[in-house]
Amino acid sequence: MSDERACLTRTFLSPAMRRANLLVGAWMQEAGLGVREDAFGNLIGRIEADQPGAKTLILGSHLDTVRDAGRFDGALGVLLPIIVLRRLRREGVRLPFAVEVVGFSEEEGVRFSSAYLGSKGYAGALRAADLALRDENGISIRECLRKRSGRRGAWKPPGRAHSPRQLLGYFEVHIEQGPVLEEHRLACGVVSGIAGQTRAKVEFAGRAGHAGTTPMALRHDALAGAAEFIVISEMLAKMRPPLVATVGRIAVRPGAANVIAGGAELSLDIRHPGDGDRREALRMLRSAADRVAHKRGLKVSFQVIQDNPSVGCSPELTELLVECVHSRQGKSLLLPSGAGHDGVVLSSLAPVAMLFVRCRGGVSHHPEEQVAKGDLAASIAIVGDFLNRLAVRRAK
Amino acid sequence: MSDERACLTRTFLSPAMRRANLLVGAWMQEAGLGVREDAFGNLIGRIEADQPGAKTLILGSHLDTVRDAGRFDGALGVLLPIIVLRRLRREGVRLPFAVEVVGFSEEEGVRFSSAYLGSKGYAGALRAADLALRDENGISIRECLRKRSGRRGAWKPPGRAHSPRQLLGYFEVHIEQGPVLEEHRLACGVVSGIAGQTRAKVEFAGRAGHAGTTPMALRHDALAGAAEFIVISEMLAKMRPPLVATVGRIAVRPGAANVIAGGAELSLDIRHPGDGDRREALRMLRSAADRVAHKRGLKVSFQVIQDNPSVGCSPELTELLVECVHSRQGKSLLLPSGAGHDGVVLSSLAPVAMLFVRCRGGVSHHPEEQVAKGDLAASIAIVGDFLNRLAVRRAK
Repeated sequence: MSDERACLTRTFLSPAMRRANLLVGAWMQEAGLGVREDAFGNLIGRIEADQPGAKTLILGSHLDTVRDAGRFDGALGVLLPIIVLRRLRREGVRLPFAVEVVGFSEEEGVRFSSAYLGSKGYAGALRAADLALRDENGISIRECLRKRSGRRGAWKPPGRAHSPRQLLGYFEVHIEQGPVLEEHRLACGVVSGIAGQTRAKVEFAGRAGHAGTTPMALRHDALAGAAEFIVISEMLAKMRPPLVATVGRIAVRPGAANVIAGGAELSLDIRHPGDGDRREALRMLRSAADRVAHKRGLKVSFQVIQDNPSVGCSPELTELLVECVHSRQGKSLLLPSGAGHDGVVLSSLAPVAMLFVRCRGGVSHHPEEQVAKGDLAASIAIVGDFLNRLAVRRAK
Repeated sequence: MSDERACLTRTFLSPAMRRANLLVGAWMQEAGLGVREDAFGNLIGRIEADQPGAKTLILGSHLDTVRDAGRFDGALGVLLPIIVLRRLRREGVRLPFAVEVVGFSEEEGVRFSSAYLGSKGYAGALRAADLALRDENGISIRECLRKRSGRRGAWKPPGRAHSPRQLLGYFEVHIEQGPVLEEHRLACGVVSGIAGQTRAKVEFAGRAGHAGTTPMALRHDALAGAAEFIVISEMLAKMRPPLVATVGRIAVRPGAANVIAGGAELSLDIRHPGDGDRREALRMLRSAADRVAHKRGLKVSFQVIQDNPSVGCSPELTELLVECVHSRQGKSLLLPSGAGHDGVVLSSLAPVAMLFVRCRGGVSHHPEEQVAKGDLAASIAIVGDFLNRLAVRRAK
């Protein structure tokens, strides 16, 4: 189910997304769920509880992918609950709460360079600015959704799928996309929270010059300044785990082997589960950039281009999940999620819990993304146990 | 006299070069020189000495330019001797040696990506590999030169213009292309030697990864390794003047803000007037790259792509030139040339001396290249004095 022949790519409201929703919807029906698609292309399967007025537990993740993706990022968190619910149905287990499995239609931000469109729609969080975003062909999200609705003339997005009062929580299973579980030889881990993230553009401006004729003492080398800043950023993050700081992109002007760099622009990405810690790191790096520039006679511009606060997971649901993981593995591990997930958006609607599953080499966003069969079995058992324990707790 | 309308560009054997040779040749004739062009497009003006068998002093520099060049780099060292010789002629001064003013046809390496073609032709140093070089249109140097010669069929380049026994020396005036004279508030300085140069390509290979989900301790960040290496290179050069080390180019894979760099490739340019010092610096930087890589679990490849030994200036001629500069400015300064010059090639033929003239802000290879009028006057006086003192010395 891909929009491209040679690799796996499924983007918001694309033909491959429609085919994926049809297939996964059929699996949902097989597992006894009532299936529908909402106005945003989210696939929703639901089992009502016996008790009238029972709250709803949402389980899910996204069915879209990055370009040239692996098979687990997103899809795992949609398919796993279906498997578990099919098993519970076979075993004749009835839950004291309603369950809704959601395959969100957009999380990766590929088509409109903006992420979480599916969960934002579901949570009633799409703003006019989101709807005005346009894809490569100049088509806006609003136009896409209106066309999908079959309406002519004005169109307004429907509101949130649920009121928070009706919800028990949101539980997402996702591959870790990092090497920590592998390092600890654990199939699964529990997410303590989703890290806040700051993205900045840092530019050093110096003076270009002849690499042969300008003595070291008279240089204003923008790349040397940038290099010093990269080393400092790394050092700071190493001293303050779980802070991570990454410079992944650098561009140098004029960029010739025999010319001292007159300009260097770099990306900075810092994340921490604690917003205070992240903001302190940002302050320290900003002042480090100033010091590096001052010392070297450079100019520096430090521009924050994105700032997302962290999302804490629900203490109650997380504690329950830790029990399940511990009981399966003999040992649990709480780890922050450095990557964003649909839970970031759903946290405005419901308490959130997340289970991470080990992926080989920590590789994701790549066709070589892989989850071992044993780890899938462990996750299935843990999700089943979680539903059972939650049922027991609700029944009390 | 430019090959381009909007900016100054004169390349090897281009129409603008021919026009420049015609104009400068006319100025040479005005100054009493006999003028010819050799097989390589070098413009040669000559005044014979009265004494038969007298040796020849070559004065000169190049008339070609980089793209979008300034007006002084090269041309200054051709025009200044003409002005001085015209003045001596007016004053009725006769020199006890022959003087040859040469405007070399190629030094910048623009058209064939190989430098010193003019002086190499003049010095009989063009090899078969040089002649086989082709420009953007696929035309080889051999074809250009054969066509120029008017010959059909086989063509061999003529040998060197002089035997070393016939030569007194080669004296070149050139803008400094650096900020040292400006820093010392001096119009002119004497070149102690032309630095040797090593160019290398250094590649660090690590592991790409998610910027949010990979803890600092588990990273193999190629850009962080490259940054550490850049900082070390700069530190080493600062500790060992007049060593200069420059990283002017860096490319990172995949180069996304939220992905840890899996690969980083950088250029390294190191220069020193002492070949032993340069080679020691190269050894130290190679082992620094190994240490950085080892510590970080990266792979490194360190590939030397160019290695030019230094050229020492003639002690006798340089001593004489220092006297002239001192007498004019009250103070002289010996400085190495970090850039290569035609003297590099001419050193195989004759003892070399070089005078550097201050240029504003150290700027060269740029339309804003500028030499103050007072500094031109100082250079003219110094070149005249140099010829006179050399004449006195030869007459003794």
